[in-house]
Amino acid sequence: MSTTPLSLDEIYKLAHDCLTQNGADAANAAALSNTIMTAERDGSHSHGLFRLPAYIASLRSGKVKGNAQPKATMVTPAVIRLHGDNGYAPMAHAIGLPLLAKAAKDIGVAVLSISHVHHMAALWPEVEVLAEEGLVGLACTPYMPAVAPAGATKPLFGTNPISFAWPRPGQTPVVFDMATASMAMGEVQIAAREGHDVPMGTGLDKNGQMTTNPNDIADGGVLLPFGGYKGSAIAMMVELLAAGLVGENFSFEAKAGDNGDGGPPQGGQFILALSPQVIATDDWERHCEGFFRELTGLDGVRLPGERRHKNRLSDAPRAINTPLLEKIRSLMN
Amino acid sequence: MSTTPLSLDEIYKLAHDCLTQNGADAANAAALSNTIMTAERDGSHSHGLFRLPAYIASLRSGKVKGNAQPKATMVTPAVIRLHGDNGYAPMAHAIGLPLLAKAAKDIGVAVLSISHVHHMAALWPEVEVLAEEGLVGLACTPYMPAVAPAGATKPLFGTNPISFAWPRPGQTPVVFDMATASMAMGEVQIAAREGHDVPMGTGLDKNGQMTTNPNDIADGGVLLPFGGYKGSAIAMMVELLAAGLVGENFSFEAKAGDNGDGGPPQGGQFILALSPQVIATDDWERHCEGFFRELTGLDGVRLPGERRHKNRLSDAPRAINTPLLEKIRSLMN
Repeated sequence: MSTTPLSLDEIYKLAHDCLTQNGADAANAAALSNTIMTAERDGSHSHGLFRLPAYIASLRSGKVKGNAQPKATMVTPAVIRLHGDNGYAPMAHAIGLPLLAKAAKDIGVAVLSISHVHHMAALWPEVEVLAEEGLVGLACTPYMPAVAPAGATKPLFGTNPISFAWPRPGQTPVVFDMATASMAMGEVQIAAREGHDVPMGTGLDKNGQMTTNPNDIADGGVLLPFGGYKGSAIAMMVELLAAGLVGENFSFEAKAGDNGDGGPPQGGQFILALSPQVIATDDWERHCEGFFRELTGLDGVRLPGERRHKNRLSDAPRAINTPLLEKIRSLMN
Repeated sequence: MSTTPLSLDEIYKLAHDCLTQNGADAANAAALSNTIMTAERDGSHSHGLFRLPAYIASLRSGKVKGNAQPKATMVTPAVIRLHGDNGYAPMAHAIGLPLLAKAAKDIGVAVLSISHVHHMAALWPEVEVLAEEGLVGLACTPYMPAVAPAGATKPLFGTNPISFAWPRPGQTPVVFDMATASMAMGEVQIAAREGHDVPMGTGLDKNGQMTTNPNDIADGGVLLPFGGYKGSAIAMMVELLAAGLVGENFSFEAKAGDNGDGGPPQGGQFILALSPQVIATDDWERHCEGFFRELTGLDGVRLPGERRHKNRLSDAPRAINTPLLEKIRSLMN
């Protein structure tokens, strides 16, 4: 694979220029470019520049507003409702997360209920922002039907990611961010191309039968939730929190309303923040560090988020896929 | 298996008498007997009378107080800290859940942080109480080390159940309650006795190798979390919320402090309540019923909690294991 080295500044500037040349205003372009740059910084390439062509497609089709001005309403001192004005989610986060963090610090727990956004990025940035403020963060969002509920053979759930961050003052937080799908369909396709099996439980073939053959899943089959009926329950919870409670599209509604331009559908997001400072006893930091010592003291265990945080320490240029770069440049003047 | 039919009233009275004869006061006995009776009512036998001998053992050893008087403190309008006075969890729920429900209705979201309790019941009763008040409930609790984190070969996590309830005004709520362990060690032992394999991922043998042979897991091996590293992340989240945030024992600490009498160790519980009435848009009920219609319209899908709620409709006597009844009677005057 041919790659081209780009510094983090160059990655940010490339994304920013491409977005503003395609209708984004400075604030929206900054929020989205920062999301793209931090993904590349942390080695999360599938959520970095790789997504930019789809973002641009939705700006061009008019599905997503490049000059969105999200509006926040404090429903109660613990509940913030944020109307995303049909822009990309990072712009809504830029407005909403500081309000959420302040509310959670004041009152111990708070909810940010985001509607009318288009979310296609990783889910760790929003909870990591909270953890850096000393808060516990939990976030989830639906998408479009791709996953069959346990027992079924037809998709209804989205890949429905869920992310969680735990603050460790003075250190990087512990963060996980995972799809509730067994794996991404892209990974199944890679397994098919490379000729190796996928674990039983990954998906069904077109006749609704369990299979370990990735070709049979990719060819008219369907993904399953991770972990069988238990993971399916978690995927359902994501639909209920981020669509039912937010008052936005369930995955099946998002698909029905989407224009098929390849960018993310309109949807919502549920973000919860909790303050250990308010809720826990005074020695919570020391107490939890004892737990992390036990956990990391076990052979074979790595804390979630650790690899990303290690990648982050390097300020070396990142290797960007050269055909992707050419594609992005073709979207610019 | 020999069974004896008992009405729900008889089940309640048996538990109540046995508890009061072993040092529980009327309030504590009522709370615990109600938990036991509702488990039998719903067909959840493993959390019904089956647990009573262990409850009695801990009253007799003095580990658990039969006259606990839990004390609640409103830390903020959204955070309630509840000291369980070292009694059984249902007594703490009787005091804390009404306060939690009121706070969540007022302000949209609230946390009940419970310390100094002993929890060995199912986890659905506490979230179902919330859903019957029109609230979303989420609860979790650690236990004692039984599950190896993904990548490890030694236990650190408890079976760490998590429960969730979604309110459906006028109907029974949608409720799931599941261990984050792949399965209970008791189920592995049953598979061994009946001579059938368990799914890959259930556990490791004593050499730390994955196996589908239940004998090899039960004989010095260890359980794994459900769903591999993703389920392991959820199990870790349970430790952090219900021990780290509550300021109570992590599973490994609970074991270190336990007297080994067979009853549940001292621990904490995290319970979150969310109000769709406050957070969601006005048509949330109709909107969510559309989702449930899509979900239950798929062949092979059953809503979580449905089977329990069906069992509940019968007022016929329940078939109680006769040797268990004899054991319980031997604990009484």
